[in-house]
Amino acid sequence: MAPKRTLIVDCDTGIDDALALLYLLGDPGVEISAITTVFGNTDAETAALNTLRVLELAGRSDIPVAVGALSNWCGEAHLAPYVHGSDGLGNTNLPAPATAPCDEPAAELIVRLARENPGTTHLLAIGPLTNLATALLLEPELPDLVEHVTIMGGAVRHPGNATPASEANIHNDPEAARIVLRAGWPVTMVPLDATMGEVLTEKHQQRLAECGSPVAAFTSTILQQYFDFYERDIFGERRAACHDPLAAAIAAGDVVPVLAPVVPTDVDTGNGPGRGATVADVRGQYRDFPTQEGANVRVVLETDRTFPEMLVDRLCGAPEPTQRVA
Amino acid sequence: MAPKRTLIVDCDTGIDDALALLYLLGDPGVEISAITTVFGNTDAETAALNTLRVLELAGRSDIPVAVGALSNWCGEAHLAPYVHGSDGLGNTNLPAPATAPCDEPAAELIVRLARENPGTTHLLAIGPLTNLATALLLEPELPDLVEHVTIMGGAVRHPGNATPASEANIHNDPEAARIVLRAGWPVTMVPLDATMGEVLTEKHQQRLAECGSPVAAFTSTILQQYFDFYERDIFGERRAACHDPLAAAIAAGDVVPVLAPVVPTDVDTGNGPGRGATVADVRGQYRDFPTQEGANVRVVLETDRTFPEMLVDRLCGAPEPTQRVA
Repeated sequence: MAPKRTLIVDCDTGIDDALALLYLLGDPGVEISAITTVFGNTDAETAALNTLRVLELAGRSDIPVAVGALSNWCGEAHLAPYVHGSDGLGNTNLPAPATAPCDEPAAELIVRLARENPGTTHLLAIGPLTNLATALLLEPELPDLVEHVTIMGGAVRHPGNATPASEANIHNDPEAARIVLRAGWPVTMVPLDATMGEVLTEKHQQRLAECGSPVAAFTSTILQQYFDFYERDIFGERRAACHDPLAAAIAAGDVVPVLAPVVPTDVDTGNGPGRGATVADVRGQYRDFPTQEGANVRVVLETDRTFPEMLVDRLCGAPEPTQRVA
Repeated sequence: MAPKRTLIVDCDTGIDDALALLYLLGDPGVEISAITTVFGNTDAETAALNTLRVLELAGRSDIPVAVGALSNWCGEAHLAPYVHGSDGLGNTNLPAPATAPCDEPAAELIVRLARENPGTTHLLAIGPLTNLATALLLEPELPDLVEHVTIMGGAVRHPGNATPASEANIHNDPEAARIVLRAGWPVTMVPLDATMGEVLTEKHQQRLAECGSPVAAFTSTILQQYFDFYERDIFGERRAACHDPLAAAIAAGDVVPVLAPVVPTDVDTGNGPGRGATVADVRGQYRDFPTQEGANVRVVLETDRTFPEMLVDRLCGAPEPTQRVA
C-alpha cells in the first residue's frame, strides 16, 4: 500500500472548505497533519471555529487547528457572507465547538511542521495565500522543505469571480499570491477554469440529504445557502461549483486533471482593472503547450467533470463519528 | 437598396490588413472614404505605401491614404517583421507605388471627414489605436460625429498573442486603447476570441492561387509568409487566423456574430504582467450576459467560423482592375 500523503490544509472555512475537509477526512490515502485558517470566505477566527466544528462532526478533533492572517498586508479583508452566510457555514448557526484552536500562529505552525518533516508535507491552500507567503518570509528555505503546493485560486481562460479578471482567493491578497507562485517550489494551481466545470446539482444535494450519514446531511444543509448564491449571481439555477473540494481531490491524487500544462504564471499586483489576475502563459494551447523557459506552475485547465459524483459518494460513505481527541 | 456604409479604415498594412482592405474594396455595400495608417505590423510610412499598392491592385487609387502615428505616446513601436515580413507584405518586395499618401496627418483627416459627414462615418481600426486616440484629443466631440467604431484587438477568454495577457494591437498602445474604449461612442471589439476561430487553410490558399483574379493571386502569395509564421509560432500547421478581415466583415455588416455581449470593458495600462489586457466583464456568461451598468463595448466572443469561405469567394470574384484615379 502506498504511504499516506501528508497534507497541511490552509483554509477559510467556508461552505466549500467544509466540503473539502470532509472529503479529505474520509480519504484513506491522506493524513491531515494540521489545518490553518485565513480570512476570506469568513474571518480567520470564525474559519477556525468552523473548522473545529467540521472536525468534531467527523470525529477528528485530534487534528490541530491554528488561526492565521486576519487580513492581507494592506490591511484589507474582503469577506463573503453573501456567498457563505454570515457564519461562514450557510447561516446554520451551529453551537460553539467543544474544542479550541491551538496557540501557535498559522504561519509558524506551517514552518515548524515542514522543518520537522522535511520533504514530506504537501500544502493545500484553499483560501487567500497570506499564511503561505508569511511562512515563506519566516523560513526562506520552506520551498526545499515542502513536497508540493496545491492552490485553489486564479482564473486563466475563465473570467474571474471577485472582479472581471480576478478570482476571490487571489484577489484577496495578490501580493501574497505572487510570492507563493514565485517561490520556486512545485505548485499546482486549480483555477476557476477547472472548478467551474465540476458542478454540484440539486440531485447531488438530495442524495446527500437522504443517504443517512450525519456528515452528508450536514453538507446537504450548508449547500442550501451556497445554491442560493449561485442561483442568484452565477448560474441562474440551483447548482454550485466544487472549488475547494476539487483542489483537495487533486492534492490527494484522487483526481488527475485532463489538461494541466506547466507554464510561466504570475499575478497582477498593479492597481488597474487586472489587479489579482493570474497571468498564465497558455499561448501554446494550439501546440500541446511546448516547454517554456520560466514555467513555474502546473495550471489545471480541465478536469473530466465527474468529480461531484466522487465527492457525494465519499460524503455518503462517511461513518458515524467515533471521536479521536488529541 | 440600403445606402452604402461609409468607412474610414485605420490600419497598419500588414498581410491581414491587405486582405481586409481587398475584402472591403469588393463589398458592394461599403464605401471607403479614406484610409489612415499607423505603426504596428510595420511602420506607419511603409503601411501607407503598402496600402497604396493594395489600392492600385484593386484599381482604387481614388481613395486618400494618410500617414499617422509612428509610435505610441511613450515613443515605443513594436513592429512585427517576423509575422508580416520585413516589407509588411510577406517579403514580396513589390515596386514602389505610383501614387502617394496625402499630406494631411491621419488624425486630422479622421476629424475633418467626421465633421464633414456627421453621424454617418464608421471607423474601422485594425491596428494600434494611437490615431483614433489622437483624433479624440483633437476633437472631443468626435464620439458624437461618428456612427460606430469597430476595432480588431484584445483578448478576453482567449490568451493574448503579444504577451500572455495582451493582444498585439492593444499591447502596442494600451493608453490609446483605454481612451478609445472609454470615449462614450458605440464600440464593437473583435478580439482573438473570435478571430482565432476563423482560420484560412492551405486549401483556401490554393483556391486563391488558382481562381485567376490578380487580387486573389496576390493574397495567395502574401499568405505564404503568414502561414510560415503561424506554422512556426502558433498552430504548428500551415493555416492562419483572419484577424483584420473578420473585423472588416463585421464592420461591413456581412458577418453577424454568434455571441457578442455588450459589457463593461477596460484596458490594463499598468506595468505588470497584464499590461495591455482588455478586461471585459464576461462574468455573466452563464446567464446570457444580463445587462450591466457601465457596459461600453460590444465584445465579439464567437462567430460561426464560416468566414474564410466568404473571404476567399470575395477575393476570387474580384474583377480585373480598371483604375479609378482621384
